[in-house]
Amino acid sequence: MQFGHFDDEAREYVITTPHTPYPWINYLGAQDFFGLVSHTGGGYSFYRDAKLRRLTRYRYNNVPVDDGGRYFSINDGGDVWSPGFRPYKTELDSFETRHGMGYTRITGSRNGLEASVLLFVPVDVNAEIHRVELTNTSDAPKSFSLFSFLEFNLWNAEDDQTNYQRNLSIGEVEVVDGAIYHKTEYRERRDHYAVYGVNAEIAGFDTDRDTFLGFGNGFDEAAVPHAGKAGDSIASGWYPIASHQLEVTLEPGESKAFTFVLGYLENPRDDKWEAPGVIRKDGARELLAKFATDEQTLAEFEKLNAYWDGLLGSYTVESGHEKLDRMVNIWNQYQCMVTYNMSRSASFFETGMGRGMGFRDSSQDLLGFVHLVPERARERIIDIASTQFEDGSAYHQYQPLTKRGNHTLGSGFNDDPLWLILGVAAYVKETGDFAILDEMVPFDNDDSKAASLMEHLKRSFDHPLNNRGPHGLPLIGRADWNDCLNLNCFSTEPGESFQTTGNRTGGVAESIFIAGMFAAIGPDYAALARRRGDDAEAERAEAAIEEMKAAVIEHGWDGEWFLRAYDYFGNKVGSAENPEGQIWIEPQGFCIMGGIGVEEGLAEKALDAVEERLGTDHGIVLLNPAYTEYHVELGEVTSYPPGYKENAGIFCHNNPWVIIAETVVGRSEQAWDHYKRITPAYREEISEVHRLEPYVYAQMIAGKDAVRHGEAKNSWLTGTASWNFVTVSQYLLGVRADYDGLVVDPCIGAEVSEYTVRRVIRGATYVITVTNSGGKGATLTVNGEAVEGSLVPYAAPGSVVEVTATV
Amino acid sequence: MQFGHFDDEAREYVITTPHTPYPWINYLGAQDFFGLVSHTGGGYSFYRDAKLRRLTRYRYNNVPVDDGGRYFSINDGGDVWSPGFRPYKTELDSFETRHGMGYTRITGSRNGLEASVLLFVPVDVNAEIHRVELTNTSDAPKSFSLFSFLEFNLWNAEDDQTNYQRNLSIGEVEVVDGAIYHKTEYRERRDHYAVYGVNAEIAGFDTDRDTFLGFGNGFDEAAVPHAGKAGDSIASGWYPIASHQLEVTLEPGESKAFTFVLGYLENPRDDKWEAPGVIRKDGARELLAKFATDEQTLAEFEKLNAYWDGLLGSYTVESGHEKLDRMVNIWNQYQCMVTYNMSRSASFFETGMGRGMGFRDSSQDLLGFVHLVPERARERIIDIASTQFEDGSAYHQYQPLTKRGNHTLGSGFNDDPLWLILGVAAYVKETGDFAILDEMVPFDNDDSKAASLMEHLKRSFDHPLNNRGPHGLPLIGRADWNDCLNLNCFSTEPGESFQTTGNRTGGVAESIFIAGMFAAIGPDYAALARRRGDDAEAERAEAAIEEMKAAVIEHGWDGEWFLRAYDYFGNKVGSAENPEGQIWIEPQGFCIMGGIGVEEGLAEKALDAVEERLGTDHGIVLLNPAYTEYHVELGEVTSYPPGYKENAGIFCHNNPWVIIAETVVGRSEQAWDHYKRITPAYREEISEVHRLEPYVYAQMIAGKDAVRHGEAKNSWLTGTASWNFVTVSQYLLGVRADYDGLVVDPCIGAEVSEYTVRRVIRGATYVITVTNSGGKGATLTVNGEAVEGSLVPYAAPGSVVEVTATV
Repeated sequence: MQFGHFDDEAREYVITTPHTPYPWINYLGAQDFFGLVSHTGGGYSFYRDAKLRRLTRYRYNNVPVDDGGRYFSINDGGDVWSPGFRPYKTELDSFETRHGMGYTRITGSRNGLEASVLLFVPVDVNAEIHRVELTNTSDAPKSFSLFSFLEFNLWNAEDDQTNYQRNLSIGEVEVVDGAIYHKTEYRERRDHYAVYGVNAEIAGFDTDRDTFLGFGNGFDEAAVPHAGKAGDSIASGWYPIASHQLEVTLEPGESKAFTFVLGYLENPRDDKWEAPGVIRKDGARELLAKFATDEQTLAEFEKLNAYWDGLLGSYTVESGHEKLDRMVNIWNQYQCMVTYNMSRSASFFETGMGRGMGFRDSSQDLLGFVHLVPERARERIIDIASTQFEDGSAYHQYQPLTKRGNHTLGSGFNDDPLWLILGVAAYVKETGDFAILDEMVPFDNDDSKAASLMEHLKRSFDHPLNNRGPHGLPLIGRADWNDCLNLNCFSTEPGESFQTTGNRTGGVAESIFIAGMFAAIGPDYAALARRRGDDAEAERAEAAIEEMKAAVIEHGWDGEWFLRAYDYFGNKVGSAENPEGQIWIEPQGFCIMGGIGVEEGLAEKALDAVEERLGTDHGIVLLNPAYTEYHVELGEVTSYPPGYKENAGIFCHNNPWVIIAETVVGRSEQAWDHYKRITPAYREEISEVHRLEPYVYAQMIAGKDAVRHGEAKNSWLTGTASWNFVTVSQYLLGVRADYDGLVVDPCIGAEVSEYTVRRVIRGATYVITVTNSGGKGATLTVNGEAVEGSLVPYAAPGSVVEVTATV
Repeated sequence: MQFGHFDDEAREYVITTPHTPYPWINYLGAQDFFGLVSHTGGGYSFYRDAKLRRLTRYRYNNVPVDDGGRYFSINDGGDVWSPGFRPYKTELDSFETRHGMGYTRITGSRNGLEASVLLFVPVDVNAEIHRVELTNTSDAPKSFSLFSFLEFNLWNAEDDQTNYQRNLSIGEVEVVDGAIYHKTEYRERRDHYAVYGVNAEIAGFDTDRDTFLGFGNGFDEAAVPHAGKAGDSIASGWYPIASHQLEVTLEPGESKAFTFVLGYLENPRDDKWEAPGVIRKDGARELLAKFATDEQTLAEFEKLNAYWDGLLGSYTVESGHEKLDRMVNIWNQYQCMVTYNMSRSASFFETGMGRGMGFRDSSQDLLGFVHLVPERARERIIDIASTQFEDGSAYHQYQPLTKRGNHTLGSGFNDDPLWLILGVAAYVKETGDFAILDEMVPFDNDDSKAASLMEHLKRSFDHPLNNRGPHGLPLIGRADWNDCLNLNCFSTEPGESFQTTGNRTGGVAESIFIAGMFAAIGPDYAALARRRGDDAEAERAEAAIEEMKAAVIEHGWDGEWFLRAYDYFGNKVGSAENPEGQIWIEPQGFCIMGGIGVEEGLAEKALDAVEERLGTDHGIVLLNPAYTEYHVELGEVTSYPPGYKENAGIFCHNNPWVIIAETVVGRSEQAWDHYKRITPAYREEISEVHRLEPYVYAQMIAGKDAVRHGEAKNSWLTGTASWNFVTVSQYLLGVRADYDGLVVDPCIGAEVSEYTVRRVIRGATYVITVTNSGGKGATLTVNGEAVEGSLVPYAAPGSVVEVTATV
């Protein structure tokens, strides 16, 4: 069942009913000001930090679900409704929400009146725009009232939902020239405020929630819109809100548009008052002046669209397969951008109050983002590397505002170091900016301990080598990529962290997955060393990689697939000899990506076992059989009910590793098949099962052991986005940046028989036309000339290179 | 305006409309299992710790306010309603909620059907009982469906509202024999579970919230009650709930009662399963068997009432003034018990996730609780003293589960040590248990550093002496009683703690309030020393007290009132020379309680200034004039908008100090007048202004500078309860325990011309009949014999002592 459809021309997903199986959201903003908005107008806004600068209030896990947001209410002769359906749930004559690139347009109509709300964050502006267009589609004049509404958060989102004994006494606002200023705590240590204004004369306003809603009422019973008359209330404590009343008259066929602006402003600390107790408002006045006319608003919207045209132009495909094209050209890249901006902070599953930036997360997010805005990727690399320790290990997370490592979580996730190499290599391949390797970067944010980025990569490379267990395989530490495989923790108390509580320093628990990473990512370190002229270092690295691969073959192969790990006691994890958790997905993907067992024929054997034991119609589960009991020696993975999350859920993040592995062994049909099972556009028709947005990946789909097999959770903020984009763009479509040129090496199902990739990199444009009959190993021509191998050398900036590839 | 009335005979407050100006709540439970319940059924339940063992889910600051709780829904031929009005808000023919001692009874009727829900936590049982009695008041038979409902919290209340990426995948339940078992995380590290059962055959059940409510619906739109048919749903992740369906038929005039039991059970860690994946349920079955019949349930309810009869029998008054009597005999003591149980953890203003037990808070709470259950007070004293440091300072808070000091907040609140002396003295006076002074008590929870409790008191006494500033007055440290007067902090960044951030060790900022405390509380230390035969120590103490009093007279008197403090720079705080914050309430109360300036006539002068400058019809504000700007050198007090909280709000906690001070100087009319202004029963008629419960004190009433002057906030959990009970029982009615006997020294308005106090202490009963014409200085007879002075010596256990007092 579908609840909408794609409009690829407009780069939009069009939701045609308010009754989706979950709130389907979009993100506004790409720089400092951000908003989350659901298809019925729910959500919230923040400046930079979703915890510390939350502008508007939103309630997670609410009843009703997704109640509260930016609401526009119409009182048309006593009939009260909202174009977004919620909160009133008044039946509409038409409803449509279009989620686009950085904007959302919600349109509803009733009784001959159409209301369309366009929400976006303009480029280079710290504000969210709500442009409300009202059209009289009837044949008689119409006069009605329009009410805006949003509820302010008292800035710190965590404090806002815990510290009521203080917070209910501190709310303050000002209302000047029809604009509503939120200034809670401005009297003391804040130098920032919010404004909500509109480019029209207002008939009234409200800033006190109890006045607007009526005490004890739900949003659906809001008193002021039902009365058709604002209370002109000034909040004093309790719950400050912002609402404007506009009186509108429209002739038949006439349209009017109003621009509401929710802005965030800062003042100099020593010049923050206009008069005693009165905020200095220069900034707000300038901001509102930018949106004084509808033409100005529409021009800003055009700028936003142009911004996205630019971003999405670096990699496009035309294949005639619309689902493939829309994922590659629009939604997967869009999700990569959102993931890069948000890390794992704010979604409808992440409250914005929790995690900082992950060392591993951000390094992986880079892979899907580096071609969009390379200069921001460069900055992120330096930030990440600055939280590394001298021994190559790293803070697992760091705080985005301070860029300091998170002490609570600390270090000891032994996969972390290698991801830095992968991210830096991707950046250098994209840009050719080898100079970044000479940048002096601190260890542990201590400038006195700075070393070149290349030295950081050396420490990264050496960390797994220096921390090996009895079988010569890398020690796992607190966990590797799978945060829930905790072989040294042995947690017995509820509420304890599975990762950081009572860690043992056994020196025994080893990860075959990290060994696979070492084999897959290590060669990039060797390549960078060689390109810097350090052949000895490159050879040392290559020898170490070969040694590791041999260790995996000897101690990491279970007979039909790769083992997952050795536990604290030296017992096998992920072996046919285990009663549960016999086979795990991660080492199968990464060992083969590292070339382990490919020549020996182990790779295909492992991939066959994956399909046989882990494959489902909804994707590949993480392990099998699911654990039915908690195993203190395995940790969090066994804490989940069977089929959910790491305990045999379908983790869409690691499915791509298997897909890439299938391309490594040249099995294009299997790779293509795996891709389609988890990719949202291909799941759109089963939205009633999948439940989440059909335009972005979710972290997890419930596995075959779950009661709700096929149901997705945790959409939007997941490394799934970048890994799937890497997979489809670089391995299936087969166009990937290398140090000296583009590799063109398609391996995609024969179903995709012809396609053209347009790739802009290092200033040149490559038009790559592929004729495909499945399998692998293309024959190339470059500008009409046949070439050997799969490399298309980089051309001069400005040039256009025509490539053909025949598989 | 009133929204109900007192029923003193039943010890109940009767709320007669759902439309109170705020949810008016009650507490269930007095030992380990607790519930909060509003007059419309909102609220939640927990076992011992409101953060770590939250049984049911509640949303603070919700829209609609107070939505979610224990709901009983009736579908009577398609007409759906609830006796508590919410969530459906179906109009009722009658509505009444009675909050009693540890129970609440909610009764509603509609269309000839009456439903009455009695909620209580039985004595010595870890469960909450919901007894639902249904009566057919029509003259025709009635058949209808009854649905129970509650929503489970996933145990850790903080994690429950933040960690959705995990929590939405882990919910698990079992349904066996009509009982619903909540077992989320039981599969892993929890050995406890909840059960919700009923003593009747069920027609169906639900455990999945989306099934019960219908996805996207509010509680008021709940699908199952409207359909009249349970979904028999088994939750798998998302949101586990518990709902039973009962089919009921009643003849005209017939009643039936059902007992629903929400229980908390623990299993042995190594024997927690009945079968693989199936919880061992012995405990739950035993629990449910205790409430198998209505007779059993009613017997447990009678036990609860008897328990409260016993508790409230230690101090009663009959004065003919019903407001006075009901506060003293019922509600003030009840609030003291709740405050003692909850500390500051869980109310409708405190989320149960924040603060631990306060050193100061708990010491003060003792004052109002010690006569109720002295043995629990003894235990609390040892817990508190164990968190003291060797220098006499103390952790400002400690965690109730671990009884360890809270490192985040640390020490340095320089009033803390003295409160311990006050609490211990009150306990010894109540019980005669001098042996407690010889108990060995650790410092900083380190048994190797144990010393006698008397030694702890010495360290307490010496702490202010050892930490004096330039004027010989006690250094204030991070803050004294007024947590918001932060003279050493200088916080400039939003979100920083005003108390613990960047504290300076100036050695200059002094507190006249602590000096007053020293004068008021120090004599109890001297008395205890003398009674232990240590006259030298007593004399040393008394000399130190005199020295301190002299220092206050010399450096702490501003001319018309007592100064508040000297700041970091040695400038005066609370002086006529300041433009704002000229006079503060705290030192006026406590200095006079300490006898400072009484002989010199300064006391009356200060109290006149209090009335003139701080007095309002709603009580005495904390300071005047209110601060209009933030002063970094004064701290949090200046962060509040004028008239709210510490910035010139009416802090009901410190009003009693002024009332006691008025009795010290013998001004009975002023004392009585001040008492009535803040005491809830006297404010019942202005409930539309006061807004909060008219049966318990609130922490604050907005002051005269506030927009909402007279509006209360933060009801229930405040030291206000104990201090007002001390004031009215010991100083106004004038019956207070001393070491050798009861002091009888009334000082109450002439309006209260005759009254009898019945006091049970140390096993004897004292019946004290007072004839009062105002002023102070009673003439006593004991068992008919005239006695000198105000002391009635303690009599042998079992005896009844008749006392008369004439003022």
